[in-house]
Amino acid sequence: MTLNIGVLGYRFMGRAHSNALARLPMFFPDAPDVERHTLVGRDEEALADAAERFGFSHTATDWEDAIDDVDVFYNLGPNHIHPEPSIAALDAGVPVLCEKPLAPTLDEAAAMRDAAADADVPTATAFNYRFVPAVRYAKGLIEDGELGEIRQVRGRYLQDWLADPEAPWAWRLDADMAGSGALGDLGAHSIDLAEFLVGDAVGEIDRVSGHLQTFVDERPVYDEEGGVEEYRDVTVDDAYTAQVAYESGAIGNFEASRFAEGHKNDHTIAVHGSKGSLKFSLERFNELEVLREGDRGYQTVLVTDESDPYIDHWWPPGHVIGWEHTFVHENYEFLSAVAEGGEFEPSFEQGYEVQKLLDAVTRADERGEWVSVE
Amino acid sequence: MTLNIGVLGYRFMGRAHSNALARLPMFFPDAPDVERHTLVGRDEEALADAAERFGFSHTATDWEDAIDDVDVFYNLGPNHIHPEPSIAALDAGVPVLCEKPLAPTLDEAAAMRDAAADADVPTATAFNYRFVPAVRYAKGLIEDGELGEIRQVRGRYLQDWLADPEAPWAWRLDADMAGSGALGDLGAHSIDLAEFLVGDAVGEIDRVSGHLQTFVDERPVYDEEGGVEEYRDVTVDDAYTAQVAYESGAIGNFEASRFAEGHKNDHTIAVHGSKGSLKFSLERFNELEVLREGDRGYQTVLVTDESDPYIDHWWPPGHVIGWEHTFVHENYEFLSAVAEGGEFEPSFEQGYEVQKLLDAVTRADERGEWVSVE
Amino acid sequence: MTLNIGVLGYRFMGRAHSNALARLPMFFPDAPDVERHTLVGRDEEALADAAERFGFSHTATDWEDAIDDVDVFYNLGPNHIHPEPSIAALDAGVPVLCEKPLAPTLDEAAAMRDAAADADVPTATAFNYRFVPAVRYAKGLIEDGELGEIRQVRGRYLQDWLADPEAPWAWRLDADMAGSGALGDLGAHSIDLAEFLVGDAVGEIDRVSGHLQTFVDERPVYDEEGGVEEYRDVTVDDAYTAQVAYESGAIGNFEASRFAEGHKNDHTIAVHGSKGSLKFSLERFNELEVLREGDRGYQTVLVTDESDPYIDHWWPPGHVIGWEHTFVHENYEFLSAVAEGGEFEPSFEQGYEVQKLLDAVTRADERGEWVSVE
Amino acid sequence: MTLNIGVLGYRFMGRAHSNALARLPMFFPDAPDVERHTLVGRDEEALADAAERFGFSHTATDWEDAIDDVDVFYNLGPNHIHPEPSIAALDAGVPVLCEKPLAPTLDEAAAMRDAAADADVPTATAFNYRFVPAVRYAKGLIEDGELGEIRQVRGRYLQDWLADPEAPWAWRLDADMAGSGALGDLGAHSIDLAEFLVGDAVGEIDRVSGHLQTFVDERPVYDEEGGVEEYRDVTVDDAYTAQVAYESGAIGNFEASRFAEGHKNDHTIAVHGSKGSLKFSLERFNELEVLREGDRGYQTVLVTDESDPYIDHWWPPGHVIGWEHTFVHENYEFLSAVAEGGEFEPSFEQGYEVQKLLDAVTRADERGEWVSVE
Repeated sequence: MTLNIGVLGYRFMGRAHSNALARLPMFFPDAPDVERHTLVGRDEEALADAAERFGFSHTATDWEDAIDDVDVFYNLGPNHIHPEPSIAALDAGVPVLCEKPLAPTLDEAAAMRDAAADADVPTATAFNYRFVPAVRYAKGLIEDGELGEIRQVRGRYLQDWLADPEAPWAWRLDADMAGSGALGDLGAHSIDLAEFLVGDAVGEIDRVSGHLQTFVDERPVYDEEGGVEEYRDVTVDDAYTAQVAYESGAIGNFEASRFAEGHKNDHTIAVHGSKGSLKFSLERFNELEVLREGDRGYQTVLVTDESDPYIDHWWPPGHVIGWEHTFVHENYEFLSAVAEGGEFEPSFEQGYEVQKLLDAVTRADERGEWVSVE
Repeated sequence: MTLNIGVLGYRFMGRAHSNALARLPMFFPDAPDVERHTLVGRDEEALADAAERFGFSHTATDWEDAIDDVDVFYNLGPNHIHPEPSIAALDAGVPVLCEKPLAPTLDEAAAMRDAAADADVPTATAFNYRFVPAVRYAKGLIEDGELGEIRQVRGRYLQDWLADPEAPWAWRLDADMAGSGALGDLGAHSIDLAEFLVGDAVGEIDRVSGHLQTFVDERPVYDEEGGVEEYRDVTVDDAYTAQVAYESGAIGNFEASRFAEGHKNDHTIAVHGSKGSLKFSLERFNELEVLREGDRGYQTVLVTDESDPYIDHWWPPGHVIGWEHTFVHENYEFLSAVAEGGEFEPSFEQGYEVQKLLDAVTRADERGEWVSVE
Repeated sequence: MTLNIGVLGYRFMGRAHSNALARLPMFFPDAPDVERHTLVGRDEEALADAAERFGFSHTATDWEDAIDDVDVFYNLGPNHIHPEPSIAALDAGVPVLCEKPLAPTLDEAAAMRDAAADADVPTATAFNYRFVPAVRYAKGLIEDGELGEIRQVRGRYLQDWLADPEAPWAWRLDADMAGSGALGDLGAHSIDLAEFLVGDAVGEIDRVSGHLQTFVDERPVYDEEGGVEEYRDVTVDDAYTAQVAYESGAIGNFEASRFAEGHKNDHTIAVHGSKGSLKFSLERFNELEVLREGDRGYQTVLVTDESDPYIDHWWPPGHVIGWEHTFVHENYEFLSAVAEGGEFEPSFEQGYEVQKLLDAVTRADERGEWVSVE
Repeated sequence: MTLNIGVLGYRFMGRAHSNALARLPMFFPDAPDVERHTLVGRDEEALADAAERFGFSHTATDWEDAIDDVDVFYNLGPNHIHPEPSIAALDAGVPVLCEKPLAPTLDEAAAMRDAAADADVPTATAFNYRFVPAVRYAKGLIEDGELGEIRQVRGRYLQDWLADPEAPWAWRLDADMAGSGALGDLGAHSIDLAEFLVGDAVGEIDRVSGHLQTFVDERPVYDEEGGVEEYRDVTVDDAYTAQVAYESGAIGNFEASRFAEGHKNDHTIAVHGSKGSLKFSLERFNELEVLREGDRGYQTVLVTDESDPYIDHWWPPGHVIGWEHTFVHENYEFLSAVAEGGEFEPSFEQGYEVQKLLDAVTRADERGEWVSVE
């Protein structure tokens, strides 16, 4: 049996997932057979071009048509496009992988979660950083109790592409299309990763305090000659910070920025327990800093041994892999769940849980007080 | 003229300042002549022993006597001993250097600040990290506009000496004696350092959100054989986090912990501006990470060149100095101000400003909402 | 036109190149069309299995047959298999890519170089580390004079897979099959990379001193149950060091080891010039440490900007790539040269030059004296 | 009893040792009492000034006079001044500490060693890096077998103060006064440190290959206005490399340079054994990188715990110390040996052993071949 995949979106994420699908047979021979079946987009010319490049046999300008023809639907469009097609696919019984954050608003995310629950097929919210080998290895250490009782977690995601006030306007800067800014785009990753790593140990987040800030509130739209056509409002946050209190008494803090000069894609997460600590940074993708009981300092572990998560599918020790490999792992797990009728995490349910946090941080910022997450 | 110095406290801080005083003549020949005159303490035997070791010619068990005999008074006792002797010295017209934080409570700090204002002599709140060469160099870069408009600041002070639940009770864990825990002991340093580095650029802190947490709420008191005599309550925070909003629109976040396994004295501060960024970590005392306009990554600068702050007093490039040197620099600056009738910063005024922040963070935590600092 | 590719060898290198070929269409759309045509090996069953996995349409147990059927021949077998098939292919006018080092002996390498010269088709010695974006970026800096006059170069390649004396015997430990050990396997990479980076600046290597050492001189061969069948001699070096003198007066030192505990694939190269320095480490594949005139410390540059070599084919800034990507770049360049009748470097000529160095290091070790390279 | 110390030399090293002597009472209360008695130099005015600053009660322009008056003699002059006064002091039964390297030539070093043997009083060759806490801690690990059988050692000392061809001429660049350049000044430290750390494990060095290179062969002498008075020849090496073979079969390589842009005082030593590895860098003075059996990566150990060598004399964990502290430890050990009639290492004997190596490296370079050390 071959799974026909339909993909909405053919830019950055479309490319990352198409590549992942293409690489499965050579590296994950037990993955289900897949066909890159239908690529969905609005601009027919660009779409045809992308379909050829990405290896899709069909294109569609109407996502409703695509849903009828495929076994699995990938929703990789901008955030405001997430709800409707995803729900439609689920209503048609088609498993859906949707890029993160799940939706611009909590209500829409709830509707998506409900549709997933009704459909009873696997869903995925594409928090790909759960599929970094170093992160999986970290999770194993925490589950095995190597860090003892977890007391603190710290997540930080720094980029710098908006530090220049003349950087161009983009859909990611519009509240209607994106929901939020650094919070939803970057913070969602940190919050999900913290949940993945320490959620079982520290319980749910009880309450949060939030701070959203926009440093530059309008941005130029450039014409093709590089002239400024107009200035458009930035209606989302450029940076956010949050404090969180977990059920167990553990505490956390989170932060993201698109204004941190010198940081391109610096997503770090740190955990402190009663017996040890660990730190991960996305820019040093293959490394994990680990301190265990009896250690005098952090070990810089190169997580590329054959015994490390997913590594036996790739190369010998020390032959580092990169960002794109997380998509291969994610697709492998999701499509295996689809083929075998299994479970996949993070599902729409987990995506919704993250969305609750994003919403709570935003409410806390608006009210100037700690708010409970429910 | 020789300045006779009286010092209350002969433990850790007493030793650090005595050493600093002893080293001035060889390395700062233009510093005023000083005599380590009177060491003040309660335990006569231990006091006599310390006086000999630290080079003091006199001892006193009553600080009031000492104040009469000296030209300068150093208050290095536990926090709850800060107010009364400091105010008495100031009332007698004696310049005072007091360890940080200034006082257990904001009211006491205000009284100390007022006494300083009335006395019109130099005062010092001993935030020694202002006197790290790398920190001074950082301040110069920011003042010169190398980082552009400052948008974000991040201060974090991690230690691990309480991670073990069986670590002994100490006065630093008692609210009456210490005021607060990680917040006042460690956070005060971060807050002062942020003020020192970016205060001129971002204005005052408008409002803060705070989170104080105690992970282990009682601690053993051990007898001499190592048996547990009793358990005593921990009435201060083991860790805190804070979010801050500056007048200029810049944002900050701060954090300290005594439970961060693997971090001994890891005080880091990071600043992001529109043109550049910098990072400092106390455990890599001689280094500053700097990214300036046009740089593609942080430069790891070894701040030991002859042109770097205070370095011409010490050793050639690459011959690193350490934590204790900050006390020499601090003593040099403070005593020079005393001798010359000059100004010294951070004074009690600045110490009070930090105390306002500590107080605001505590209030914010209690109320569960952002509070204004004033 | 489609290039039919024949590949001898279906293990580690076979997989790395097959993957590279498979990825060209999506990421390098202007690369020539290729077909993974014939996979060559001796074990028919394993071969068939690999051919299916790697996407080859044909298999052959006799490389002579394969050469007749393909447009390009990849020789990825053990070193002692390099000469004969490569020369046969060249004699048949078929372009050849051969893994490194070119041959077990200098004479064989010379024969291969001569065959290449006679054939007048592109050849490649597969020194893939020339195709790391950070390395290419480094070369650009040196060519642009950013480091000034080059005075020192240092190459070091550390692995640890033989540190355990009970690690199993392998063909790489046999002089007849491998030529040499750490020297040929790892040192060849360092020597080629130094030549690539600074060869134009410092001229040829005049003379070398060498040191080869075998720490463990026999190794177990295990049977399928893990019992020791026999001990076989290790007839190559476990580690080597070399000193080199360049024409220009610059100096260098090189080293490799398979016994350096804690180093998996730690290939580093450092260059010092009159104006600046740089350092690269393979385990931090996406980073380059650069110090330029006026800098006070090394910049840690993440070489993932759109303007960096090959990066525009992949992902946005900060989305790191890995070891396998070097093969894609290498295949792209080589196959483009084949298709367009262009030049490719490093060719067999450059592979031979490296071999001369390996030979000189070995002779210097045997004689206990500096030897000229020829 | 008080030891009267006579010190020849009042520049960099004079200052470092005077400071060390001054700090003993406060931090090493069981050290012998010392008086900074006589400071020896030629320029009376500068000498008087230094004596006051450094706390010496007497001065002498003739070292022979000083030797008569003191209990211990410190020879801190340029290398060519080491032999005669040191031997005279020893002949008078006065213990001598001499800066490194012991002498410009092997013959002079032998004479000094012989005088020490005849005198039967403690002598010191001032290889201060043996007294870094992290280095002592490393030695303990190796002695305890934590690294297993030692197979490789690597020493590298990089500075950059000569990278600029217009940097001024200095006595260190003259063969008659200094003996050698980077080799004797920096390499001597590396060779001694390797001997200290692994000498017991790997035995003596059997044979060496050497390479000395001078990149800039004359340097300006500047007049007081900064004009160039004359150009003087550089008759020593700017950089050296060496390969060594130890008795045990272990191998080593060493290197130093005064031309390595971006490296101020970067003295690193690395050791690989069958069970583990370690690395130390002087620019990160308080850290040791350690990998032990079972570790997956190097631990970054902050060697500032109370249990670490010498640290209980200083500050609490995480309060870093610096370069100058090595002199305090060295003086403490040496003067304790003098007072108690004990042994001190490294003595003139060890200083001579290092000199043999320096001499062998030089001979090997001249002859273009490996030479035995004896």
